[in-house]
Amino acid sequence: MFYLTVDILGTISFAISGVLVAMDKKLDVFGVFIIAFVTAVGGGTLRDILIGNTPVGWMQDPIYVFVIFGAVIFGILFRKRLKYFRKSLFLFDTIGIGLYTMVGVEKGLSAGLLPIMCIALGTMTASFGGVIRDILCNEIPVIFRKEIYATACILGGASYFLLRKLPIEDIYAYIGAILIVIGIRLFAVVFKVSLPNIYKVEQ
Amino acid sequence: MFYLTVDILGTISFAISGVLVAMDKKLDVFGVFIIAFVTAVGGGTLRDILIGNTPVGWMQDPIYVFVIFGAVIFGILFRKRLKYFRKSLFLFDTIGIGLYTMVGVEKGLSAGLLPIMCIALGTMTASFGGVIRDILCNEIPVIFRKEIYATACILGGASYFLLRKLPIEDIYAYIGAILIVIGIRLFAVVFKVSLPNIYKVEQ
Amino acid sequence: MFYLTVDILGTISFAISGVLVAMDKKLDVFGVFIIAFVTAVGGGTLRDILIGNTPVGWMQDPIYVFVIFGAVIFGILFRKRLKYFRKSLFLFDTIGIGLYTMVGVEKGLSAGLLPIMCIALGTMTASFGGVIRDILCNEIPVIFRKEIYATACILGGASYFLLRKLPIEDIYAYIGAILIVIGIRLFAVVFKVSLPNIYKVEQ
Repeated sequence: MFYLTVDILGTISFAISGVLVAMDKKLDVFGVFIIAFVTAVGGGTLRDILIGNTPVGWMQDPIYVFVIFGAVIFGILFRKRLKYFRKSLFLFDTIGIGLYTMVGVEKGLSAGLLPIMCIALGTMTASFGGVIRDILCNEIPVIFRKEIYATACILGGASYFLLRKLPIEDIYAYIGAILIVIGIRLFAVVFKVSLPNIYKVEQ
Repeated sequence: MFYLTVDILGTISFAISGVLVAMDKKLDVFGVFIIAFVTAVGGGTLRDILIGNTPVGWMQDPIYVFVIFGAVIFGILFRKRLKYFRKSLFLFDTIGIGLYTMVGVEKGLSAGLLPIMCIALGTMTASFGGVIRDILCNEIPVIFRKEIYATACILGGASYFLLRKLPIEDIYAYIGAILIVIGIRLFAVVFKVSLPNIYKVEQ
Repeated sequence: MFYLTVDILGTISFAISGVLVAMDKKLDVFGVFIIAFVTAVGGGTLRDILIGNTPVGWMQDPIYVFVIFGAVIFGILFRKRLKYFRKSLFLFDTIGIGLYTMVGVEKGLSAGLLPIMCIALGTMTASFGGVIRDILCNEIPVIFRKEIYATACILGGASYFLLRKLPIEDIYAYIGAILIVIGIRLFAVVFKVSLPNIYKVEQ
């Protein structure tokens, strides 16, 4: 129940971030819905395809389609006031990537993959919806250019495999890893930390 | 036989629409062939990947490769006169999306998916070849910006599930749904109906 | 052992070509790594997805992740001197596409596909990592615009099926096909041969 609630909040937040980008690009309502949809489920879909977990997740439970549909309606109706929700959206999004990361890690473990592959799958689940959104909108993906985002997922995913070696129950390692993703992301945004751009170093 | 003929006409039409876009982008002959190919089979390929129906469809029957190859040769040779075929191409394309929609719906039903997912798969089959074409050509996909296209597929796909509830044979519901896709598309083009762009509403 | 060495050299070369493109686009270090990664493994990943060979290849052996990671570190550290390695890189890349083509052809044969589909899979394995790299960097894929690249893979892949009909052991047909890919690519670059652009013909 806890997982489901956070999962849904993350889906809503990802969907609304898609609505915002799609509106900037002046798409029609169908385009807005598709961009919102791929932003919300694209990462998990890519993960499921790579490990052969088909039909992919969102096809097996209509709740995601309905939630995203609702988020799009909400986003369009209140588009002038979305700025007031910006902080809430950021928080949902940050909680969302924490949970999505661990969902991806778990799926990798179920498929019998090595930890490094599980971390890659977790990072993909959390961040590649945004990559697909940016490709469809004809932009270089924002996570390749700035912000600690995927990095938080990688470090959080890796911490799970360290935490599991401690004499604690697995659920605490799981929750701890989620909190580490969230903590790194919050820290990076509050203190404006980002990865170096390679071209800057060059000069 | 009827299906195969229309399927081939749809494939030809999609391939030629790819040739036209690729020529605008000044690609070489290999690029033109690839763009034509993904336009024609990209939607069905994405559908097959999402439901785990592999090797994907076009790999199991070489007819699509040959037909697309022929269409590309034709398109290149007669590129100055393609404008005279524009109406025929539009008609093939419209018939093609009607049939492709229902092919996708059927594949979803075979995979045991819910009606809403079957409609999504049908729409994808009919319209995502064009999306991949536009991404490869570095454009924001045209179906996200204008024209009733995917909308016709969605409404046609949905109508199939309604028509099936009538006391008629399934084949009539199937054909009826194809005709509804075609009818909506023709109507929208003739009367220049399109979905609202979100940014317009905002002002 | 021979295969593995060449495979690794090809992977390094593809990864560094990704680093070069990503640095031109001023991506951050995470972005550079991802672009290098998809350039190196993207073609094989697409091939594995299309034939349903999941989890995809690079997930089952961590050597690719480590090699690409090393190549990215090397590429970033020596980015000012990469031009001195340009000829070596070109040679690795050319050997790499030769081998990658035949790896793809073999996978297609294992999946019981027709020769024409095996050739398509081989070409994809060798050249679509670069296509995905260019899409992520918001460019029209370079292989659609210039250079004999995919064409070398297609001709080399096709030659394998001809060579197999000769009274020679299969391994010689295999090596012969790799050499044909390499030979055509070298010939085309040295003599600046390229495919005609369609728009040029039109004028």
